[in-house]
Amino acid sequence: MEKVKIALLGFGNVGQGVWKILNTNKREIMINCGYEVEVGKILVRDKNKPRAVEVPDSIVTTDINDILSDKDIKIVVELMGGSEPSKEYILSSLKAKKHVVTANKLLLATVGDELISTADAEGVQFYYEASVGGGIPVIREINESLTANKIESIVGIINGTTNYILTKMSQESMGFEEALKEAQAKGYAEADPTSDVEAYDSVYKLAIMASLAFSTKVDSSSIYREGICKIDSIDIDYAKKFGYVIKLLAIGKEIDNELELRVHPTMISKNHPIANINDSFNAIFIKGNAVGDLLLSGRGAGDLPTGSAVVGDIISIIRNKADLRSIGEIKSNLPLKKVKDFNEATSRYYIRLQVADIAGVLGEIAAVFGQYDVSILSVNQEVIDKDSVSLVFITHSAKEGNVSNSMKVIESLDHVNQIASIIRIEEF
Amino acid sequence: MEKVKIALLGFGNVGQGVWKILNTNKREIMINCGYEVEVGKILVRDKNKPRAVEVPDSIVTTDINDILSDKDIKIVVELMGGSEPSKEYILSSLKAKKHVVTANKLLLATVGDELISTADAEGVQFYYEASVGGGIPVIREINESLTANKIESIVGIINGTTNYILTKMSQESMGFEEALKEAQAKGYAEADPTSDVEAYDSVYKLAIMASLAFSTKVDSSSIYREGICKIDSIDIDYAKKFGYVIKLLAIGKEIDNELELRVHPTMISKNHPIANINDSFNAIFIKGNAVGDLLLSGRGAGDLPTGSAVVGDIISIIRNKADLRSIGEIKSNLPLKKVKDFNEATSRYYIRLQVADIAGVLGEIAAVFGQYDVSILSVNQEVIDKDSVSLVFITHSAKEGNVSNSMKVIESLDHVNQIASIIRIEEF
Ligand SMILES: NC(=O)c1ccc[n+]([C@@H]2O[C@H](COP(=O)([O-])OP(=O)(O)OC[C@H]3O[C@@H](n4cnc5c(N)ncnc54)[C@H](OP(=O)(O)O)[C@@H]3O)[C@@H](O)[C@H]2O)c1
Ligand SMILES: NC(=O)c1ccc[n+]([C@@H]2O[C@H](COP(=O)([O-])OP(=O)(O)OC[C@H]3O[C@@H](n4cnc5c(N)ncnc54)[C@H](OP(=O)(O)O)[C@@H]3O)[C@@H](O)[C@H]2O)c1
Repeated sequence: MEKVKIALLGFGNVGQGVWKILNTNKREIMINCGYEVEVGKILVRDKNKPRAVEVPDSIVTTDINDILSDKDIKIVVELMGGSEPSKEYILSSLKAKKHVVTANKLLLATVGDELISTADAEGVQFYYEASVGGGIPVIREINESLTANKIESIVGIINGTTNYILTKMSQESMGFEEALKEAQAKGYAEADPTSDVEAYDSVYKLAIMASLAFSTKVDSSSIYREGICKIDSIDIDYAKKFGYVIKLLAIGKEIDNELELRVHPTMISKNHPIANINDSFNAIFIKGNAVGDLLLSGRGAGDLPTGSAVVGDIISIIRNKADLRSIGEIKSNLPLKKVKDFNEATSRYYIRLQVADIAGVLGEIAAVFGQYDVSILSVNQEVIDKDSVSLVFITHSAKEGNVSNSMKVIESLDHVNQIASIIRIEEF
Repeated sequence: MEKVKIALLGFGNVGQGVWKILNTNKREIMINCGYEVEVGKILVRDKNKPRAVEVPDSIVTTDINDILSDKDIKIVVELMGGSEPSKEYILSSLKAKKHVVTANKLLLATVGDELISTADAEGVQFYYEASVGGGIPVIREINESLTANKIESIVGIINGTTNYILTKMSQESMGFEEALKEAQAKGYAEADPTSDVEAYDSVYKLAIMASLAFSTKVDSSSIYREGICKIDSIDIDYAKKFGYVIKLLAIGKEIDNELELRVHPTMISKNHPIANINDSFNAIFIKGNAVGDLLLSGRGAGDLPTGSAVVGDIISIIRNKADLRSIGEIKSNLPLKKVKDFNEATSRYYIRLQVADIAGVLGEIAAVFGQYDVSILSVNQEVIDKDSVSLVFITHSAKEGNVSNSMKVIESLDHVNQIASIIRIEEF
């Protein structure tokens, strides 16, 4: 198996997430790009810092030149954050003809232009899916899936910390300060939460999305910004009373060739799909003139979700350079997977029967379920007419085959008039 | 501007949608792929059939050879449906070294393998985003965005007709037959609705998604299938009582290298994001071991949403062949778009004030709003303590600048103690 060597600049949350994914999902990655991806070097500030993930000492460095001068390293992955030296390191990597992947929204929003045009000029690839929406593939969506559309608007919950706080305020009647403390305790908010709660983070991400969606340069200082610190529980209550939910929304619209760009707490109908995106989840709602309304939702942060986007970018870079047919070959030679016998599938069940209104029927039916290992969580009985009653069972998890066998016996019981309905109950 | 010529096989719903998009969104398409896309030929059964969209007579044909032998046609777009002659035409196009785009789920689910390997062997591209989920980019999601993941499960509402019927049954207490009739009247269900309501359509789409997500061949006859015809209003009512919603779900899971594949009506918690996907909307809920939970939702059918996916595929094909740097150049030379002055933005507003409990205050405030053209939809008044009351206004749509100017005046009124809160109300 051939290998592609990459370097990680930064080995914090996301860097370690990327490392874990490269190791855990070796097989999937190989299938999807035809290569094994190997981390050849890792740049950190402090080599002696204890880290949750262990890596060989020999690949850790504090000198960017170890990476820039290493001809074997084809892809540089910037996960340090901040503006400098990240920008300088990315530019030097591009100029050393290395492809670059980054998760750095600050850089993209402020000097994205310069980075993209440098990559173009050097003839190398530059990807940044993780910079907006963490694991949600919103950049690829705009750049590759919705290319047939004139995008009319993008509305997003693109900051997990503030969504978590607003959810707590709304669902558990917490005040802002209390909800913020809980977010900090859970690791969703940083010690200094300014960038999140004052909506700077959302502004950067909106600048990135809007520039792609509306094919123009967007200066993030032209975006109206208002954070969530002033939201009072009283307002949350009024919102509910009027049928609304308060969310921190990033809003980008194009109307008559002019852009409207703003980030602020917003009341939206409680029935809008975005109103039900809670906790630290992110969501992006896009209107295109062909596709109509499109909603994407998922984890906007965290080591693995963000790493998913970063590693996805690495794979794209390799695929763009590799021969796609060899991947086709790998895929067509994979062993077939067995489809499980449906009788072995398990599920909970809702079962509705019509039975004669006679003492002992329920006992008889319960006994049959018992014989077949189908255990009952609840029974509801309702009179239908003078002769028959409806019995509704909810089962615990049971095997399909056992349920269908038990139903055959139950159907044949004297006092059972009809098996009216069997519907599986699932949790995902 | 250089042109890429394509041919459409079929000019029904989707074919005409593609035509409309190519015309309406010429500029966006050019920006995104660097070329103008021109329809060189259209294949139909009946040249004299009246059609809603007019096209030049000279490009319409009933002979596939007109297209196969036309060296200028680089991409063939199959939108006829059915298995034959679609399959034969696709194979012949691939062998004539033309790239192919199709929306044909039946073909993909049954002979997808053969089509993909033929395209590979001929060294041409083959795309089929529209075959599952209409405008929702689920294929690209699995194939390109989630490549870093081991996908654990895919759960989808992938048939709009049945989702529409179940929504009507649940929200308007219709019976199945009545809801089906309404779906037919609205054009969501066909005269013969078997393929939708008996879930064959969902089975095909699940076969396509599962084969990609789990990297294996999936035989659609190995998928358990159960339609929605037997769902009774009584069951819908019980589901509500227990906190569930009934949806027709396509479920694919991989557990210990074995697949579980099934399509059936399912009760899921009313709080699950998928439970709130209503009417003819589709949704796909994917669990990856890195990305976590990801939800995609949008229009699963219709001329423009489906056309959005088809044209997106056409653009991808062109981009893969074109020099990406020339697109970069086009993009970097686009005129800058103006960001609208925030004072000109319009919104509805929720405004909460604390005022002295004195007759005439409300009138004074209302007069100021009137001066600034801010029209009031509703006022709520609540006593806070013996001296002050809370006034909550909901406005009609008003200009940001007018609202902020009116607030400055209102703030200065003698009996106004505090502007407690201003939150914008939006609809999307
Ligand atoms: N965390 C998320 O969920 C998330 C989500 C989306 C995007 N992002 C973006 O991903 C990037 C990384 O975030 P993170 O949360 O992983 O940050 P982090 O945990 O703070 O890690 C930063 C890493 O960069 C290294 N580093 C910083 N400055 C350096 C320098 N001058 N030279 C060498 N190494 C340096 C640090 O080295 P030491 O370990 O030696 O200190 C550390 O390993 C940021 O751009 C962030 O905005 C993060
Ligand atoms: N409709 C949707 O919303 C949707 C969504 C996703 C996927 N799809 C898929 O897209 C495809 C097309 O669907 P549609 O709704 O557009 O179908 P449609 O409205 O029935 O149109 C079919 C077109 O194909 C032409 N055609 C059929 N057989 C032909 C033959 N043997 N030779 C030449 N032309 C032939 C017809 O010609 P005449 O006009 O002369 O009869 C007609 O123009 C199907 O595979 C469908 O599953 C549709």
